[in-house]
Amino acid sequence: MRQRIKQYLPVYLVMGLSGNGKWTAAEMAKEALEGGITLLQLREKDAPLHQVLEQGRQIRDLCRKYHVPFIVNDRVDVALLLDADGVHVGQDDIPGSDARKLLGPSKIIGISAGTMEEAEYAVAQGADYLGVGPIYATATKSDAGEPIGTNLMWQIQKRWSIPMVGIGGIGHDNAAQVIAAGGDGVAIVSAITKQAAPRSAASMLHQNVKAALSKRI
Amino acid sequence: MRQRIKQYLPVYLVMGLSGNGKWTAAEMAKEALEGGITLLQLREKDAPLHQVLEQGRQIRDLCRKYHVPFIVNDRVDVALLLDADGVHVGQDDIPGSDARKLLGPSKIIGISAGTMEEAEYAVAQGADYLGVGPIYATATKSDAGEPIGTNLMWQIQKRWSIPMVGIGGIGHDNAAQVIAAGGDGVAIVSAITKQAAPRSAASMLHQNVKAALSKRI
Repeated sequence: MRQRIKQYLPVYLVMGLSGNGKWTAAEMAKEALEGGITLLQLREKDAPLHQVLEQGRQIRDLCRKYHVPFIVNDRVDVALLLDADGVHVGQDDIPGSDARKLLGPSKIIGISAGTMEEAEYAVAQGADYLGVGPIYATATKSDAGEPIGTNLMWQIQKRWSIPMVGIGGIGHDNAAQVIAAGGDGVAIVSAITKQAAPRSAASMLHQNVKAALSKRI
Repeated sequence: MRQRIKQYLPVYLVMGLSGNGKWTAAEMAKEALEGGITLLQLREKDAPLHQVLEQGRQIRDLCRKYHVPFIVNDRVDVALLLDADGVHVGQDDIPGSDARKLLGPSKIIGISAGTMEEAEYAVAQGADYLGVGPIYATATKSDAGEPIGTNLMWQIQKRWSIPMVGIGGIGHDNAAQVIAAGGDGVAIVSAITKQAAPRSAASMLHQNVKAALSKRI
């Protein structure tokens, strides 16, 4: 299971439904998939849920076409309705073990952690992977807290060797550092979604991360 | 089905988990159940979900003891985990027909409506009852919009005769008006939860509403 999860983590896109002026959300998803993202998480906190379901269905179908897992943030009910490949939950969302009850054994459950205590809780809750951060300063998530750097990733890797991605302020400049620190991938928001050319942004990140992963082995 | 639903609507308590200084949420639920509420909806938007699940389970067990339906606001996943008797969804929440897919045919699905268009959508979505409002001005729900009075209840009653409760600023003074306008009950927040004696507040409301219902028949 862990090897299977790791292969999905290198370029982990987190996106909402707002698009970016040039691209709609579905168009952006398609470009990012073409560029080589390895997983797509839909994180949309503001749109009416009928819209999340409608547009989420389109994005899910795109992900299936590219054989890339489609994960829903926070809402297990939405994940069920979209037949998503899993959910990603924060420490204040539905606990991983409860999400597992609703989703069954084969779906992917990711949990956020920003401290060793949170990581321990996430592992105990049966997380398939951790989202560790915020690694660097980010403007994307207003409640993300102070950046913690890559040190925690080392500690988590040493203690549990659980699959993990770094998240928060990661882009071309610093993706390799996150991999060097033990990350199996990088969770990216604005370094893909805020770019005029999401496809080439995804493609460059893919190359950076693959190169960094090959150096580590 | 409709008659069964109607019997649960007379004194419909909507409460969160914050309690009111004197009472914890579970204590308040118990007092309100003793006082004669006929349905309890848990609406908690801020607490961590592990806490909603823990305290929700206690309140659900209390409701079962008093043979009063326990309904969860918005989150169908939480309703599933708590084996609640149903959900109540707003116009921007998971659509009723999707909630039904997850909950099955026997659970109660209530939908909010503030216009005839919203009521039409709710009926089309398979609502078992409508929550119509805000009838009067309320300080409880910051995004509730302008009060609409009882006129819409008349129109809905005439067009669909679907079970419904009025919601928004309802208390001892005006509960009878809502019943006279065609409501099968009143949804109450602060007129029970903000009172020093929630049990007697619930009991008085119960008497008011029963008296108003008997006048209507």
